[in-house]
Amino acid sequence: MKLEWLRDLAKPVNKVSTQAALARQENLTKPAGSLGQLESLAVRFAGLQGREIPQLKRIAIRVFAADHGVAARGVSAFPQSVTAQMVQNFCSGGAAICVLADSLGAEFKVVNLGCVAAVPAHPVLVDAIIAPATQDFTVAKAMSAPQLEAALNAGRNQVNETDMFIGGEMGIGNTTAASALLAALYHLPAEVMTGHGTGIDETALKRKVAVIDQALALHDATVQDPMALLGALGGFEIAALVGAYITCAQRGIPVIVDGFITTAAAAIAVAVNPSIKPWLVFSHLSDESGHAVALAKLGVTPLLSLDLRLGEGSGAALAANLVRQALNLHGSMATFAEAGVADAD
Amino acid sequence: MKLEWLRDLAKPVNKVSTQAALARQENLTKPAGSLGQLESLAVRFAGLQGREIPQLKRIAIRVFAADHGVAARGVSAFPQSVTAQMVQNFCSGGAAICVLADSLGAEFKVVNLGCVAAVPAHPVLVDAIIAPATQDFTVAKAMSAPQLEAALNAGRNQVNETDMFIGGEMGIGNTTAASALLAALYHLPAEVMTGHGTGIDETALKRKVAVIDQALALHDATVQDPMALLGALGGFEIAALVGAYITCAQRGIPVIVDGFITTAAAAIAVAVNPSIKPWLVFSHLSDESGHAVALAKLGVTPLLSLDLRLGEGSGAALAANLVRQALNLHGSMATFAEAGVADAD
Repeated sequence: MKLEWLRDLAKPVNKVSTQAALARQENLTKPAGSLGQLESLAVRFAGLQGREIPQLKRIAIRVFAADHGVAARGVSAFPQSVTAQMVQNFCSGGAAICVLADSLGAEFKVVNLGCVAAVPAHPVLVDAIIAPATQDFTVAKAMSAPQLEAALNAGRNQVNETDMFIGGEMGIGNTTAASALLAALYHLPAEVMTGHGTGIDETALKRKVAVIDQALALHDATVQDPMALLGALGGFEIAALVGAYITCAQRGIPVIVDGFITTAAAAIAVAVNPSIKPWLVFSHLSDESGHAVALAKLGVTPLLSLDLRLGEGSGAALAANLVRQALNLHGSMATFAEAGVADAD
Repeated sequence: MKLEWLRDLAKPVNKVSTQAALARQENLTKPAGSLGQLESLAVRFAGLQGREIPQLKRIAIRVFAADHGVAARGVSAFPQSVTAQMVQNFCSGGAAICVLADSLGAEFKVVNLGCVAAVPAHPVLVDAIIAPATQDFTVAKAMSAPQLEAALNAGRNQVNETDMFIGGEMGIGNTTAASALLAALYHLPAEVMTGHGTGIDETALKRKVAVIDQALALHDATVQDPMALLGALGGFEIAALVGAYITCAQRGIPVIVDGFITTAAAAIAVAVNPSIKPWLVFSHLSDESGHAVALAKLGVTPLLSLDLRLGEGSGAALAANLVRQALNLHGSMATFAEAGVADAD
């Protein structure tokens, strides 16, 4: 595979800007530390963007959509046709992520990596079709090596000049793929990493766990190569997210990671290239079981915990609002000297 | 006291609108329940505002400021002069709440209930001065009956026609008053309810606890009348918040409660008039010790947990952003029928 770029180091965090932002925070008219995680966010973005006062004008949102062969195994509450239907809903502005993208003033695109049903062309839709769906990974590798490469590159191609990148995903069956990937990557039992997804009942949950167990056995989940895991158990949209996340970090673009499926992509991306980790801001703890375990394995603390389990990038878009407020406060508050306010005794 | 209005019942929550909003949520293009607390928020606001699709165009923010006699006892990291200096900073737009109010497009006013230092007139400043400060409550009641009535009415007078009300506070020494009030109200030891406020060290924290213990002993904190507690241990700004919260609930205006001090005001308000509780949305769990205990006593779960401990209404303003997104999603997402998307199997 011509994927040497995956291992190129991420842009280093700028320590001078980090220190300057820390010093600025100490001088703003508030008790030191009283804005808690908003202060850490502002300082972190200063280091990432390489300026004392970071900005968040341009936000790029890309929703990667693809179908999954494993959906045939009855692992979702929704029929597979919903992937393409939701892609059309993303195009027409009716989905949650569209409403949130609009309110952020974000640049929004939907990337079709392959749906079983056809999707009509639309100005916000990018055609990056690889195949109608991945293979059912209980009987074969989800994707071939060229398909994996195409998906990673499709993600890479979606990274343009912006202040922050949000990746979302849509694909009936993709919590099954994400659970399988995380279970394999962290050598954990399938049941620890598997949840109700879009809302399956207990019977379907048992089936989903059994399906993942079957896949882990077939693909020898003891394998240590995260790229091999991604090809065997992933989805086109998950691989595209991996490619996008790594590219963002290499080009110096902060990423907000959304929920469970994007965290699986982030976990694979960090396993492939650990240097990218500082560039990934984790938005929320989702209601999908397994997410808390994955975040703990990554050693990260998300900003929000609102029982979300939608995906699409929706939790990341909510967190982007919070980051924007953190940067507004950092850049616009008066210092003690400017305001003529006495500092602490 | 002519304060019979305090006990007038809150406007009832509209159950028809609540049901209509619940039904709408079930039909939006997402798995049922997948927007978690954002769904509950939208449904709750539908019931409060009495319409299936609630709105959050107009937000009123009032920061109530006052000085505290107990500041003389060395309970704060900042000199008392900072209250008036911060009032001027609120007027000139340099404080955190100003930046957040501006980003929300909120109607913003600062209400001066009495600062030791003079504050020049300003278009956003409301002069509602009661006295230069409360009495030191370790030696006397914080305020007289007429002063308490004036403070409650000053809060009531700040409630105008709006979609949501946020009350903030500023007053050097006011975490001491809030801790004393909550300890007395819930019959808990001072040390459980007392934290580092604006950033005092351990020695000052011990002094602060001793000061509160002294006040609780003097004013017989076993008294069951929350209004008596408010007059003995409160502050003008805390009493104004109590008056504002109760008035909002009576007039049908949802309130977002900020952090520790505003929660003390909310606790007193609910103790005086339990019917108002549905109108109070709690924004965040602050870093001030005692806040988690107070929220648990009230039986409420806040939306955010970001280690904030600034006050001013800042946490409530951040949460207002989240509520606005919840209502945007509720009002603007497509239904399954509109989008031609299949619902769950």
